[in-house]
Amino acid sequence: MTHILKGMRVVEGSAFVAVPLAGMTLAQMGADVIRFDRIEGGLDAGRWPLAPTGESLFWAGLNKGKRSVAVDMKSEEGRELVTRIVTAPGEDAGLFLTNLRVRGWMDYDTLRQFRSDLITVTLTGDRHGRPQVDYTVNPALGVPDITGPEGHDEPVANAVPAWDLIAGNLCVSSLLAAERHRLRHGTGQEVELALKDVAAAAMGHLGLIGDAVLNEEERQKSGNALYGAYGQDFECADGERVMVIGLTGRQWSGLVKATGTANAMAHLETRTGASLRDEGTRWRVRHEITAILKPWFAVRAVSEIAPLFDKMGLTWSQFRTIRRAVAEDPDLSSANPMFRTLEQPGIGQYPVPGAPMTFSSGPRKAPVAAPRLGAHTEEVLGDVVGMTDTEIAQLFDRGIVQSPDFVRPRTAA
Amino acid sequence: MTHILKGMRVVEGSAFVAVPLAGMTLAQMGADVIRFDRIEGGLDAGRWPLAPTGESLFWAGLNKGKRSVAVDMKSEEGRELVTRIVTAPGEDAGLFLTNLRVRGWMDYDTLRQFRSDLITVTLTGDRHGRPQVDYTVNPALGVPDITGPEGHDEPVANAVPAWDLIAGNLCVSSLLAAERHRLRHGTGQEVELALKDVAAAAMGHLGLIGDAVLNEEERQKSGNALYGAYGQDFECADGERVMVIGLTGRQWSGLVKATGTANAMAHLETRTGASLRDEGTRWRVRHEITAILKPWFAVRAVSEIAPLFDKMGLTWSQFRTIRRAVAEDPDLSSANPMFRTLEQPGIGQYPVPGAPMTFSSGPRKAPVAAPRLGAHTEEVLGDVVGMTDTEIAQLFDRGIVQSPDFVRPRTAA
Repeated sequence: MTHILKGMRVVEGSAFVAVPLAGMTLAQMGADVIRFDRIEGGLDAGRWPLAPTGESLFWAGLNKGKRSVAVDMKSEEGRELVTRIVTAPGEDAGLFLTNLRVRGWMDYDTLRQFRSDLITVTLTGDRHGRPQVDYTVNPALGVPDITGPEGHDEPVANAVPAWDLIAGNLCVSSLLAAERHRLRHGTGQEVELALKDVAAAAMGHLGLIGDAVLNEEERQKSGNALYGAYGQDFECADGERVMVIGLTGRQWSGLVKATGTANAMAHLETRTGASLRDEGTRWRVRHEITAILKPWFAVRAVSEIAPLFDKMGLTWSQFRTIRRAVAEDPDLSSANPMFRTLEQPGIGQYPVPGAPMTFSSGPRKAPVAAPRLGAHTEEVLGDVVGMTDTEIAQLFDRGIVQSPDFVRPRTAA
Repeated sequence: MTHILKGMRVVEGSAFVAVPLAGMTLAQMGADVIRFDRIEGGLDAGRWPLAPTGESLFWAGLNKGKRSVAVDMKSEEGRELVTRIVTAPGEDAGLFLTNLRVRGWMDYDTLRQFRSDLITVTLTGDRHGRPQVDYTVNPALGVPDITGPEGHDEPVANAVPAWDLIAGNLCVSSLLAAERHRLRHGTGQEVELALKDVAAAAMGHLGLIGDAVLNEEERQKSGNALYGAYGQDFECADGERVMVIGLTGRQWSGLVKATGTANAMAHLETRTGASLRDEGTRWRVRHEITAILKPWFAVRAVSEIAPLFDKMGLTWSQFRTIRRAVAEDPDLSSANPMFRTLEQPGIGQYPVPGAPMTFSSGPRKAPVAAPRLGAHTEEVLGDVVGMTDTEIAQLFDRGIVQSPDFVRPRTAA
């Protein structure tokens, strides 16, 4: 049961999506990840969605498999403790992830006085250091303008915080790259990145900035159509809806064959004088293609379409609500080895995902529930900071640290 | 000018977003990344958006700074060449990223016969090995069902391929984690992940699966509102639209103060009997909050709002189209050191992003344009495979490899 990052220790001072996800991804690859929080919990302690118990499903989701330490950072002593945890010795330690906007004692230059080869990865909102969230970055970059039904004249927001998720993953890559560098050169590293830059870079990588600069025609909303080739949603006879893809030549010819529309497509080619083997042509005449395909779907139930499409190897899927997906799709249940149904303390039982990656050198790491806030305070003060039971008990006595289940040892009385 | 991954060599056999992004991210951190393609180009060679010249802005965006090799893989000799490039010696080489669905000669078990410590990272569509794209994964997981205007009864697609971008970043993390492991244990690694699992895991991490399993009420579309706290778009007096955020306590109190709505909010608290300091309350009564704030925005132009909000440190942004953002936002221009205006061969000039991360151990790596297809064929056959000029010339003669500008050396005549 050795996992790929076993032995690595990472400390995380974070809130919300990106940096908590980064720490959790490292934990799910086998690293020992210690998240520290204020005694009352971080800014994300009550982030929605909540469970019926009132506990945050969001927090539980993004902090699985970490150790949790709760410290009063308003006190000098608490700040010193966090510094000692972050800069504790160990060849595979001295790795710090943060998006907390704390100036002074948590700065890289201050912290590395205690460990010169410290690596910190700091995520900010924008490159000017201001807070940003997906909800502000998207409007600024034009994403809501190209999202939504064709012809709809209002901006439409994304429901998934994509930039946060991407930024979190870049924190992981940056930390691993910096640690690789330290292993060879012995040097520490300050890594910085901003959420808005992550989004702007991705827009550029996808060609959207070049498109805006070089092309006359401005990118429009295109509803559920696959941009630049063919892909569309259709309603079936039973009221269900499916998405079908004709992005590659093989997908397109498979779709035409499965629906028996080769003649109609040939007529369309004659009419428009353009070959549908060209993906750009499929995009330009997508409404005509959809009109040809629509009647085929309208008279067939999904139960008839699914086995045919699967047999022919088409790329397609069925629209579901999240609840239906969880109930009906085995990929979202324990039938998928990535998931395990866990008891999440304070919340209840539900299927919980581990890392999507598998590594051949070891077994798949099963997901581990999130800790209760401060659950590992005592343990970390002992095994990382190297404090005695008496010293630890005194910190609890003075309210500098907290744990949901600390029991005062008799010897400290 | 040493960059964080300098010396590492990665080979990439890929198409579309995720794996090309993975290779490019490594290249933008300083690795030597070699992408091989069929002589006519990969499946993504003409992916939209296109430039006015007809060349793919998408391909250029996702292959910046790589070396490109064009090989006829239908020939035995071409396949052998690719095998030699992938498994070439070098302590920091033997790293292979792929999402090509090629069975047999490109399998991990076949390739590692030529290099036992080979690391491959393979991305598939779903865990069953079937192709999937964001456009099919989203409907299957329920994302379009929770996207779009409140009360809208149609599914709404995302315009940005978030799962692809996230999966690409996970390919980078996995490769770096596996290489770290190889450095310590000398062992190769087969890493596998699937796009649909990446998406399903993220949905779980965000608490959406727990929400669907444990809560009675099903998550609904909520338009441009920030889910679970407060955040909303407003139209201003000049017709511009802004997004304002009241996620944290500080953001919320700042917004109330800036808009002078403290009294109205206090009345709302009395009326509803709930404290707006609680983020869940702000979410539940968001329509009432919006009704209070709306008139304030309706009589003010952005030119009046912007300096006030910036001065008060509010988290907000202005809605723009991509074109307007590129024209007006310095963060999307060369004023941002992440961007550089480059001449992209076959396309033209436009601002191109490098990696969003900076590493203190070296200068920021400037972005490098994408190669023309096959531009480095000759060079790679020489410096990676170790072929002589004569051997290389013979491969060109027989059409096994291709390059846009190969000049037959006289000695090979």
